[in-house]
Amino acid sequence: MVKNAVGRDIPVQVKGMKLTPFQGAFAHRPTGRKAAPSLGYVASPDNRNKVVKGIEAAMKAVGLQDGMTISFHHHFRDGDRLMNQVLEAAMRMGIKNLTLAPSSTFPCQEETLLKAIGTGTVTYIEGGSYRGEIGKAVSNKIFDRPVRVRSHGGRVRSIEAGAITIDVAFVGAPSADHAGNCNGMYGPSACGCIQYSVPDSRFAEKVVVATDNLVDYPCQPIEISEQYVDVVAIMDSIGDPARIVSGTLSITRSPTRLKIARDAVKLAHVTGHIYDGSSFQAGAGGISLAFTKFLGELLEREGYVASWSMGGTTQYIVDILHRGRLKKLLTGQAFDLAAVESLRNDREHYVAGVDHYANVHGKGCLVNNLDVVVLGATEIDVNFNVNTVTFSNNVLAQPIGGHQDTAAGARFTIITASMMRGRLPVVIDEVTTVTTPGETVDALVTGYGIAINPRRDDLLDMVKDSGLNIVDIEDLKNLAYKKAGIREQKKPRWGDDIVALIEYRDGTIIDVLHEVV
Amino acid sequence: MVKNAVGRDIPVQVKGMKLTPFQGAFAHRPTGRKAAPSLGYVASPDNRNKVVKGIEAAMKAVGLQDGMTISFHHHFRDGDRLMNQVLEAAMRMGIKNLTLAPSSTFPCQEETLLKAIGTGTVTYIEGGSYRGEIGKAVSNKIFDRPVRVRSHGGRVRSIEAGAITIDVAFVGAPSADHAGNCNGMYGPSACGCIQYSVPDSRFAEKVVVATDNLVDYPCQPIEISEQYVDVVAIMDSIGDPARIVSGTLSITRSPTRLKIARDAVKLAHVTGHIYDGSSFQAGAGGISLAFTKFLGELLEREGYVASWSMGGTTQYIVDILHRGRLKKLLTGQAFDLAAVESLRNDREHYVAGVDHYANVHGKGCLVNNLDVVVLGATEIDVNFNVNTVTFSNNVLAQPIGGHQDTAAGARFTIITASMMRGRLPVVIDEVTTVTTPGETVDALVTGYGIAINPRRDDLLDMVKDSGLNIVDIEDLKNLAYKKAGIREQKKPRWGDDIVALIEYRDGTIIDVLHEVV
Repeated sequence: MVKNAVGRDIPVQVKGMKLTPFQGAFAHRPTGRKAAPSLGYVASPDNRNKVVKGIEAAMKAVGLQDGMTISFHHHFRDGDRLMNQVLEAAMRMGIKNLTLAPSSTFPCQEETLLKAIGTGTVTYIEGGSYRGEIGKAVSNKIFDRPVRVRSHGGRVRSIEAGAITIDVAFVGAPSADHAGNCNGMYGPSACGCIQYSVPDSRFAEKVVVATDNLVDYPCQPIEISEQYVDVVAIMDSIGDPARIVSGTLSITRSPTRLKIARDAVKLAHVTGHIYDGSSFQAGAGGISLAFTKFLGELLEREGYVASWSMGGTTQYIVDILHRGRLKKLLTGQAFDLAAVESLRNDREHYVAGVDHYANVHGKGCLVNNLDVVVLGATEIDVNFNVNTVTFSNNVLAQPIGGHQDTAAGARFTIITASMMRGRLPVVIDEVTTVTTPGETVDALVTGYGIAINPRRDDLLDMVKDSGLNIVDIEDLKNLAYKKAGIREQKKPRWGDDIVALIEYRDGTIIDVLHEVV
Repeated sequence: MVKNAVGRDIPVQVKGMKLTPFQGAFAHRPTGRKAAPSLGYVASPDNRNKVVKGIEAAMKAVGLQDGMTISFHHHFRDGDRLMNQVLEAAMRMGIKNLTLAPSSTFPCQEETLLKAIGTGTVTYIEGGSYRGEIGKAVSNKIFDRPVRVRSHGGRVRSIEAGAITIDVAFVGAPSADHAGNCNGMYGPSACGCIQYSVPDSRFAEKVVVATDNLVDYPCQPIEISEQYVDVVAIMDSIGDPARIVSGTLSITRSPTRLKIARDAVKLAHVTGHIYDGSSFQAGAGGISLAFTKFLGELLEREGYVASWSMGGTTQYIVDILHRGRLKKLLTGQAFDLAAVESLRNDREHYVAGVDHYANVHGKGCLVNNLDVVVLGATEIDVNFNVNTVTFSNNVLAQPIGGHQDTAAGARFTIITASMMRGRLPVVIDEVTTVTTPGETVDALVTGYGIAINPRRDDLLDMVKDSGLNIVDIEDLKNLAYKKAGIREQKKPRWGDDIVALIEYRDGTIIDVLHEVV
C-alpha cells in the first residue's frame, strides 16, 4: 500500500495487475513504445467489396471467438442499437469470456449487457466509464477483478500504449461505403461524428464497420479509412435517431444555478480568461449550458470574438458560431441535432479527434490550449479535489469524460456546483472518490460564494472589486454541513475488495473503489 | 541469385541487406507488426508554445546528431527551400553521416545535396525516388550500398513497417500554429496539401514543423496534428511560390500524342471502364493531361457523371469537377495553382492520405477502387513490363510515383507511349529496368496502334468494331526497331556492383540496377 499524491492508499498490485500510484498532475513521464498492431493486407483488386449482410456474418468473418476484447463507441448515446445486437449474436453463437471495451455504456444497453454477463459471454469491462445499472453491478463486485475507470484522454492513451488491446472494434457508422470508409455525419442514424472509434480502428487487430446507410465510394468526409477496416456489416438499424441526440438540451431554470453560471462567466472575465481571442469549453449539464449562453452574451456585449471552442457541442455553442462570436468550433461529440446540422454545414466547424483533444501522451493536445473550462462535480472537497464518478454512497454512477483532461490542460478551471444534492452536502472535507486532483482546479463557484484555490492567490487582486462574493472553501463546507444538519462527513461503509481503479489521465492510479456492502 | 517472377536475377542478399524477390503482383503477404514509435509526452500547459526561430534552433531542440535519418516531403517540388536550409545548417553544425529519407528530390536541391554528400554530412538516401543529378550520382555508385527505389505506396508501407526508421521528420508547412498543427493549403508557400509527410510525422521519433506562416491556434484544416510535433521552426521562407506549383501545366500539342490520348479515352470507354459513375486517375504528363481533357469531353457528351477521381491534381480535373461531371475529387498532391485554389474552395474536393491512396499493407486503398488509370513509361516490353525509372542507358532518372500502385489496383490500366524517344525505341524486347510488372498492365496505346495484354483477351470482342487499331505488341516492337534502324535491342554496359534496388510496392525486389560504367 502506497499513499499517492492526493493522499489515497493505493495497493502496489491487485489481482496480478501492477499499479503505479498517482504522482501529481504533471509528474509522470511515459516510457516505452506505442502499441503495434499487425500489418494489414489489401487483397487483390477483385476483393474490393467488404460488405456482408448482418452482424453475425461480420463476427464470423473476423473470427470473433472466446476470450477476445471487443470495443464500441458511445456516439449513439442512449439510442445505440449496435452493442446489443453484437452481444445477442455472441450469446446465440455461444461465445464466452469476452472483454467489453466501450468508450461508455448507456441505459439502453444495461439489460442486454447484464444478461451477457450473466451467461458468461462478457466477463470483464475495460472502460471508459460505467454508469447506471452497470456501475452498480461493478460496485457490487460482479467481476472477479477490478475495472479501470478512465477519462476520454485516458482511454485513447491506454489504447495507444497497449494497456487496452482490442481484438475486434465494432464501429457503428451512420454512413459507410463498400470498402469501409465511414463517417457519422449523414444517414438515418447520423450522430455527428464517430471519433471515439478512431483509436480503436487504428490499433485493433480487426475492425467491423456496421452501417444502415451504405453510400457511394468513397464515403466522404472520411473519419475512419478503409485501410483499417476488415468487414462492412449491413444492418437494418444501428441507432434510434430519436434517442441518439436530443432535440434540444435544456438549460437550467433554477435561479441559483443560473446565478452560478453568471458568476462563473464573470469570474473568468475579471481574471482575464475571457478576452478577445480566448478559447473555452463547457459541457452539456444545465449549469454548463447556461454558462455557454451567458458567455455568448458577454462576447456580444464586449465585442469579443473567441478564437475557438471545443465540444461536446450543443445548440448554445453553435449559436455563438453563427453570431460570428467564435472563429472555430471543434467537435469530438455532438450532443444535439443543432451540432450535427452545423457539422454538415458550417465551414468553420471541424471534427476533432479524441487523441488530439486529450491524449496526455501525445506531444500536445487541444485541452492544453484552452483558456477556460467549466466543469461539474458530484463532490468537491476542501483541497479542491473533485469526484465525478460516485456519489457519497460510493456506487460507481457517472463517467469522468474529459474532466481530468480539461482541468489539467486549461489555464483556468472552474468547478460549478450546488451546495447540496438533496439532503447531502456537495462541498465536503474529503471526496468519496478522487477523480480530478485539486492542483488542477482553480476555483469553485457555488450559489453561496466563490472559493479560489489558494494555489491561485495571484487571482485575488483581480476579483477584489468585482462584486463577486469570494469566500474560503472551508466556509462553504461548513455552510453545507449546517444545511445538511451534520457536524462531520459521513463516510459510506465498504468492503475490503477493490472493485474499480480510478486512473488518472496518465495511467497512474488516483483512487480505488471498494466493494459496496 | 534467384530469378524473380518477372525473370530478373535478384541476389539473396547485398551488403548485408536480405532481399525478398518479387513473387507476383498479388502474391506476397506481410507478416509481423507495424513500427512502434516512442510514446510522446505533452509537457505541462505552461509549455504550449513550441516555436523557435530558425531551423538551426529546431535541429538543436530535437537533438539532431550524427548518423540519424531525416525526412522531407516533396510538395514544394522544384520550389523547395527547406531541405537545402537543413542541409546547410547540418554542414555548418558539423553533423555527419545522415541518411536522407525524402519522398523525392528536385533539381533545386541537387547542388546542396551533392555538396552535403561530398562533405560526408549525407552518406545515404532512403527513397522515395531519385532523379536528375542525384539519380546520376547513385548510378555512378556514390554510396557504399545500394539505395532503394520505392513507389508512393511503397514508401508509406516501408515507414509503417519500420523498413525506413525516421529520427527527425522535417515538415515544410505553409500554415502552422504555435503547437504544430499544420496544413499546406494557405500562406505564401501554399502547395495544396502536405500529405507525404503524414506517415513521417506519425512514425518519426521527432518532428519539426517549419513554417513561414504562423497562424492562430488551432490551425485548420489539420493535416498533421500537434500531437506528433516537437518543435515549430519559424523561417523566412520555406518555398519559392513561383516554382512550387506551375501556373498551368501544358497539354501536349503533338498530333500523334493527342491521338494517343483520344484513343486511350475511346479504349477505356468501349471496354466499359468509363461509364456513368466510373472513377479515374491520370497524371500530369502531356498525354495524361490530354487524356483528362478528352475524358471530360466524353463525360459531357455522354451525360455521364464520374464518381471520383484521384490526383496528382491539375486544372483539367478541377474543370471536370466544376462542370458537374465529377462527384468527388481527391488530392494527394497539387500540381498547379488551380488545384490549390480548388482544395480551398470546392466542397467536394478532399485531401487524401498517401497511405489511404496506395498502401498495399493497409486493409484497402483508393487505387484498388479505380476503374481506369492512364500511365506513362520510359520503356515497355513485349511482356508489358514497364520501366519508369531509367532510360535505355540504365541511369536512374525518374520516379516511380504511383505507377506500380495504380497499375495493380485499377480495373483497367493503360500505358500510353510514343514509339520512339529520339532515335531510341520505347517498345522493346526487354525493358532495361522493370518497375511495373506486365501482369498489372492491360493495354498499351501508341500512335501506331493499341496492343492488348493477352491476359485480357476478354476485351478483344469489345474493341472489334470500335475503329481502334488493335495490333500485336510484337508488331509495335518490330516497327519501333525498324524506325530505330536496329534488328535487336542494344543493352547498356554495366558494372558488377548493384547501386539500386527497385522495390515493388509490397517490399519485394522487382529489379536491381547495376553501376553505370
